Amino acid sequence: MQNIKLTYFDFHGGRAEPVRMALAIGKIEFEDIRVSFMDFARMRGSLPLKAVPVMEVDGVSYCESNAMTRYVGKLTGLYPDDPWQAFLCDEILEASEDVTVALVKTFGLEGDALKEARDKLENGIITDCLELFNKRLAAAGGAYFSANQLTVADLKVMVWLRALNAGQLDHVSNSLVASVAPELNTYVGRISQLPSVAKYLEQIS
Amino acid sequence: MQNIKLTYFDFHGGRAEPVRMALAIGKIEFEDIRVSFMDFARMRGSLPLKAVPVMEVDGVSYCESNAMTRYVGKLTGLYPDDPWQAFLCDEILEASEDVTVALVKTFGLEGDALKEARDKLENGIITDCLELFNKRLAAAGGAYFSANQLTVADLKVMVWLRALNAGQLDHVSNSLVASVAPELNTYVGRISQLPSVAKYLEQIS
Repeated sequence: MQNIKLTYFDFHGGRAEPVRMALAIGKIEFEDIRVSFMDFARMRGSLPLKAVPVMEVDGVSYCESNAMTRYVGKLTGLYPDDPWQAFLCDEILEASEDVTVALVKTFGLEGDALKEARDKLENGIITDCLELFNKRLAAAGGAYFSANQLTVADLKVMVWLRALNAGQLDHVSNSLVASVAPELNTYVGRISQLPSVAKYLEQIS
Repeated sequence: MQNIKLTYFDFHGGRAEPVRMALAIGKIEFEDIRVSFMDFARMRGSLPLKAVPVMEVDGVSYCESNAMTRYVGKLTGLYPDDPWQAFLCDEILEASEDVTVALVKTFGLEGDALKEARDKLENGIITDCLELFNKRLAAAGGAYFSANQLTVADLKVMVWLRALNAGQLDHVSNSLVASVAPELNTYVGRISQLPSVAKYLEQIS
């Protein structure tokens, strides 16, 4: 068994949360290291590609959250074996990352510049992504994004939609999902009530 | 057998090239559709997430080049079965994409603004990535990035390093790889001479 340490910011969201959630659901022990933004600033220079999350496995630090998400998905039965179903899962993972990259670019902004950038994202890639996810979910039958089972794509989308609905992003309406793709909220409500997911959400609440 | 159409710009590089290369090496037939920037501007609104490459499979258009790369890698024996080796392959694929995203952001710039942005990338993520790749390749034994065999990670890195060495990016030195990680040039030279890769490179030259 590998010794896994996961380092990320101390909140239940963002790039590491689907990894933490998959490991918890799959009952795989890991060291869950939380760092402050000050800690991150201090340690950044020594991290691969100067970013978190970092997954340390048997003493070596690795980067790239989607690679981690996919890997722990395989360890925990939350990633499809079938290549085509895996592709459908991957398209969702990678598109979610595109939105995250676009959002991270706005984190340093303030005032009108922040509002302008967020408006552009709300009317651009965020809405485009919600529409794409809605279409893909419907095409997959409406229950899960791929393989008719819970996968890391569901976890990643759930984490993102919960953040949007909680109004965590200034200038992005917390009713955007409800107005663009209400079916996605029904879906997230259902996924959140799966016993393994509900248990995790209760632990972090 | 699925009917695959791949749409991308008409050059031998960028996000679609590792997909084209894997399909060619694996002798999987596909429709190789090349579009001009004008074509792209016209069709953009109808594309998932308004981007290319687009992979159309049995009449449905999908996005996300790394999802495509991974999928065709599985179809062609160029993606590891073992989850840990697949993780090592994925870290490289995703890191390559991080660099591409950063580069694409500079494509609209001109003059001093372009020079400044490219200098920042050359001394930042491009160098960081070259150093990371060099370290990972050495840790994997020096021949391939994962599973001791040719994978899509090798194809993706080869496409990128060939572009860097050809000086395709204004203000990024074509001797950067040689100065930061000369071992990567030795590696690319060797990969380029594998019969299946050499045949592809001859066809496009």
